[in-house]
Amino acid sequence: MDVAIIGGTGYGAVELLRFLHNHPHVEVKKVISHSNSGTDLAEVYPHVVDIIDMEMAELDVDTLAEEVELVFFATPSNVSKNVIPALVDKGVRCIDLSGDFRLRDGEKYQAYYGEEIAPREYIEKAVYGLPEINKQAIKQTSILANPGCYPTATTLGLMPAFDKDLVDRSSVIIDAKTGVSGAGRSLSLNVHFSEMNENFKAYNIGVHKHIPEIEQILTDRANKDIQVIFTPHIVPMTRGIMSTIYVDMKDNYSTKQLIDTYQTYYQDHPFVRVRKEGVLPSTREVYGSNYCDIGLYADERTGKLIIVSVIDNLVKGASGQAIQNMNIMYGWEEKTGLDQLPIYP
Amino acid sequence: MDVAIIGGTGYGAVELLRFLHNHPHVEVKKVISHSNSGTDLAEVYPHVVDIIDMEMAELDVDTLAEEVELVFFATPSNVSKNVIPALVDKGVRCIDLSGDFRLRDGEKYQAYYGEEIAPREYIEKAVYGLPEINKQAIKQTSILANPGCYPTATTLGLMPAFDKDLVDRSSVIIDAKTGVSGAGRSLSLNVHFSEMNENFKAYNIGVHKHIPEIEQILTDRANKDIQVIFTPHIVPMTRGIMSTIYVDMKDNYSTKQLIDTYQTYYQDHPFVRVRKEGVLPSTREVYGSNYCDIGLYADERTGKLIIVSVIDNLVKGASGQAIQNMNIMYGWEEKTGLDQLPIYP
Amino acid sequence: MDVAIIGGTGYGAVELLRFLHNHPHVEVKKVISHSNSGTDLAEVYPHVVDIIDMEMAELDVDTLAEEVELVFFATPSNVSKNVIPALVDKGVRCIDLSGDFRLRDGEKYQAYYGEEIAPREYIEKAVYGLPEINKQAIKQTSILANPGCYPTATTLGLMPAFDKDLVDRSSVIIDAKTGVSGAGRSLSLNVHFSEMNENFKAYNIGVHKHIPEIEQILTDRANKDIQVIFTPHIVPMTRGIMSTIYVDMKDNYSTKQLIDTYQTYYQDHPFVRVRKEGVLPSTREVYGSNYCDIGLYADERTGKLIIVSVIDNLVKGASGQAIQNMNIMYGWEEKTGLDQLPIYP
Amino acid sequence: MDVAIIGGTGYGAVELLRFLHNHPHVEVKKVISHSNSGTDLAEVYPHVVDIIDMEMAELDVDTLAEEVELVFFATPSNVSKNVIPALVDKGVRCIDLSGDFRLRDGEKYQAYYGEEIAPREYIEKAVYGLPEINKQAIKQTSILANPGCYPTATTLGLMPAFDKDLVDRSSVIIDAKTGVSGAGRSLSLNVHFSEMNENFKAYNIGVHKHIPEIEQILTDRANKDIQVIFTPHIVPMTRGIMSTIYVDMKDNYSTKQLIDTYQTYYQDHPFVRVRKEGVLPSTREVYGSNYCDIGLYADERTGKLIIVSVIDNLVKGASGQAIQNMNIMYGWEEKTGLDQLPIYP
Repeated sequence: MDVAIIGGTGYGAVELLRFLHNHPHVEVKKVISHSNSGTDLAEVYPHVVDIIDMEMAELDVDTLAEEVELVFFATPSNVSKNVIPALVDKGVRCIDLSGDFRLRDGEKYQAYYGEEIAPREYIEKAVYGLPEINKQAIKQTSILANPGCYPTATTLGLMPAFDKDLVDRSSVIIDAKTGVSGAGRSLSLNVHFSEMNENFKAYNIGVHKHIPEIEQILTDRANKDIQVIFTPHIVPMTRGIMSTIYVDMKDNYSTKQLIDTYQTYYQDHPFVRVRKEGVLPSTREVYGSNYCDIGLYADERTGKLIIVSVIDNLVKGASGQAIQNMNIMYGWEEKTGLDQLPIYP
Repeated sequence: MDVAIIGGTGYGAVELLRFLHNHPHVEVKKVISHSNSGTDLAEVYPHVVDIIDMEMAELDVDTLAEEVELVFFATPSNVSKNVIPALVDKGVRCIDLSGDFRLRDGEKYQAYYGEEIAPREYIEKAVYGLPEINKQAIKQTSILANPGCYPTATTLGLMPAFDKDLVDRSSVIIDAKTGVSGAGRSLSLNVHFSEMNENFKAYNIGVHKHIPEIEQILTDRANKDIQVIFTPHIVPMTRGIMSTIYVDMKDNYSTKQLIDTYQTYYQDHPFVRVRKEGVLPSTREVYGSNYCDIGLYADERTGKLIIVSVIDNLVKGASGQAIQNMNIMYGWEEKTGLDQLPIYP
Repeated sequence: MDVAIIGGTGYGAVELLRFLHNHPHVEVKKVISHSNSGTDLAEVYPHVVDIIDMEMAELDVDTLAEEVELVFFATPSNVSKNVIPALVDKGVRCIDLSGDFRLRDGEKYQAYYGEEIAPREYIEKAVYGLPEINKQAIKQTSILANPGCYPTATTLGLMPAFDKDLVDRSSVIIDAKTGVSGAGRSLSLNVHFSEMNENFKAYNIGVHKHIPEIEQILTDRANKDIQVIFTPHIVPMTRGIMSTIYVDMKDNYSTKQLIDTYQTYYQDHPFVRVRKEGVLPSTREVYGSNYCDIGLYADERTGKLIIVSVIDNLVKGASGQAIQNMNIMYGWEEKTGLDQLPIYP
Repeated sequence: MDVAIIGGTGYGAVELLRFLHNHPHVEVKKVISHSNSGTDLAEVYPHVVDIIDMEMAELDVDTLAEEVELVFFATPSNVSKNVIPALVDKGVRCIDLSGDFRLRDGEKYQAYYGEEIAPREYIEKAVYGLPEINKQAIKQTSILANPGCYPTATTLGLMPAFDKDLVDRSSVIIDAKTGVSGAGRSLSLNVHFSEMNENFKAYNIGVHKHIPEIEQILTDRANKDIQVIFTPHIVPMTRGIMSTIYVDMKDNYSTKQLIDTYQTYYQDHPFVRVRKEGVLPSTREVYGSNYCDIGLYADERTGKLIIVSVIDNLVKGASGQAIQNMNIMYGWEEKTGLDQLPIYP
């Protein structure tokens, strides 16, 4: 099957290329980059030299619709919403790694993304692509809104407790930490090496785009309005996300009981690994892979459940999950092209 | 004034040496190390070669009591409690960077430190050396229990809100992050470079020694039994601690109001810097210095106050605070030997 | 085909497991570890939990010889020399990632490895497994001495210049830099995180085990006794090696001419990529992959050729090259199981 | 004494501020920044908040000449050459951390710096400020050309061997490595965190501005035209430079002999520390300090001397050396304001 990637100079795109390089059913026909059209991919990303020989192209919707069946958008905010409608109308399926089709509420989109939301009929077509909770809908969709990195780690960490009604759903506090690659390849003093190395920062408290996204999922699951506290931090490392989540338990569950519940909940989901009692996952343990690893601790003294959920932000938090979604959309085995060990060390 | 340092091969000791090197009133007469007695300090720490020419010595309490007026203990747990009583009986004042004299409750000491607490009469003599809340008592004491790194960052972050009765004191959640030097110089797979680099971990949830220490201080201030949630994490960098603290506000305070309260509270305390609205401190901004920087965010949506408090774990979290305490104990200006800019970048 | 790995707790072993996990013709039947026999692999390396379910075993040569066709040794020095002879005698082929069978000269082995060399008849059976120069011999061998990390990067960087007689072969200076994982998983103060982070060190000047290995290869190619200057350094990162090599040119070649020669030389070798003029490879550009990337600069002012050669020390410098050798030994396509993009960033 | 700093938003300037903060004879009256005039210094560098309260100013030569006795230039290339003449004419002494006044040869300046050199009369006034070889001239000068970071580490490493005629002066190869802060605070993809972290690169081979600077010093000392090979690399850490230098010995000196010669050579120079036999300095051992540490290894097999010389690029390689030069210019003790231990770890 022929696919294209739009947004060819970002980290999302190169990570898609890495996984698609080993995918048996897919060929990347085109890499599109407005800022680098006409340039060899290997000029911009020398690590692919002699492996991928491809000139990046300018976007042309009509040509693209003839050439490929599926398009990945690894673009900044407010780009895909202007392109996906035309592609979908021409019968091309789209997987959007940006946030343009994740929120349903136009006002919130405006507030957090600074522009008007995509046209309503396309928003309604879009499916939020978290495979562990949404597999059926993903199969059919033509617009797949691939989840954000923080929402992925956080939601997977909370879902069993929410769905099994084990916690007070209005008490969620998320203390989240990301590696620097989450900030992308655009230059900024914040992620200038000498500023970010040997440094640890909190940022965007109260205004991060992923707040309404997390709240939308949790509200859907809880069937009532959920608000969360979400504090993102940035860690001096390239890859990895950890969400440390605090929530009040409804009863005095033991850590062991909760782990059992979680393991049962995820037993058919190959990319979620729930750790045994006394073991918490670290980000390195999922490095380069599509796994989400979850550790639990029930603090019997205070009645709090502490959930530690880790992913590789560029894989399960972006490109890997996009491949997983593609596999589901096309009826292929979910792990196709993704069945690799994490890189350690 | 002549002083000695016990525990000469740890990071606490070398950081004491760094600050004492520029202290106008003090000379380090002796560095004691059981494991390295007879070895030149510069063999163990080559960065002091040609600057400090000193052979490390074995501990001998009688000699020591004749040679110095003050002894710093930069020792592991359960060492100083066996030595300080004898020194104090001989009229030597002691500043203990370990946790042996911090807790008053013998059962908790036993539970978290695994041994019996120091004799009661010496525990009663000991003063908890957080200068910003305890300055008067520090002046007189002969046994100064220098606070732990996490408790320092956390307590300074919470104190104004507690003392001014702005928050529900039973709702405290502390998500803490430390640089790797907090684990000391003892070898361990956890902090082996290839295991810790490009990695982010949670550890010791529910069992960290600093839990009872934080709770003791907060309980003292609140005049009622306080329990906290405390989750420590380790960051792939050498120095720095951040405590991100979540607590329920009693009223709908604005960020600005809280900052004003904090700035007033700390106006006579030169090492606490409360940042202005919209600015959160990062760990690099206190690197190598004795500052504790605090940022605040009142989340009006959820009624939570989020406090970000950063220190250098080896300075305000250990050796710098010990010097600050010494200055107070001897009536010197609090900043003597500590008045340096953070190292940036 | 069933294989075993001896040395199950080292980084070489886990990296073998990563590549063999995706190898179509091979199954890892057994992982042997003396220090951890009886322990689950996932206890020691949690990143494989729920993927590899295997208890590590004690070594038993007889059983092993019945169970597998091929054994990988990812062991410290002076282990495989005591085991490989017995296995080979029983018809098992061995790939040795350690240095035990690399040197032919018993005195040099004694001088650099501190023990007696393996029995002569087995040393004579062994083939030095650098596929780019030794492919024919590799096919037949039962004892494959997998090259060291530094010798791989260095030799591949020098070979075309040596073989095409472009340089004064007695003028080689190698300034080499490695990531920390090259030091393995054994604890040591040198690679304790707080000692190695934000630090850059030279080490083992004049005594590194790879000196006689490099000299042996170069001597073989030059047909005369070659001595090199070799200075290893350690870089605060986990993976990657760069050899910066200085050698006198025999004539005033241009950079362009040399690049052409190198590209022709390596045209049938898929894992060596010679960069175009003006471009030097960085270690990240081969991260996690089996590529060796080479950049050249002919300094016309001084007549020196400067060669920059990079590999991932754990892949082309160890486990990836071992897989490549296995592929050749069994007549499989050289890239089988290794055809992956480097991980970037 | 009142001084000013021009170039207030660079790392050179903040490092000057750090050392001048503890200098007993100097007050920083003004910090000048074209790009940030009118902004509080603490807005741009939050680590100085509540310590330095100063608004950055626009440059006005006339006012400046009235307000201060000495001006530090921590500016990019080709700035100071347009300002220093006017200041010097008004009797202000200048210390220039940029390269504008380091080279005497106008053609080379043009070739490496891309513009015309400063007017000849001012170039002739300028003194190259490497205190260990040039102390007398430094005392008198009104234009102090503060050396580059690489030339400082390299020259100090070579000087005794050159001056004592121990080596073939035409055989110098310098393999140099720097931390990322050497690239300054200007944004660039090269030093974007995710590109530079876990990466090691060579750069600017054959075209680095420090080549003519090193050659000029060596040529002066050798009294004949010296050309060097100089290959700079960048290390994923913030601070530190190591020059590993290779040079042919004229005789079969032992390491011990050479160390004796070096120690004697530097006995009156407090910031150069020559390590004993068998010990090589690492960059961390001079972190944050003005020391240059040198290790030697005489390779008797090949007749090469290998010199390892380390500095903190922002201190002895820039601002610390500038303070040292100021101390000499004003007749103060050379270590004034610089007598601090390196920060370890």
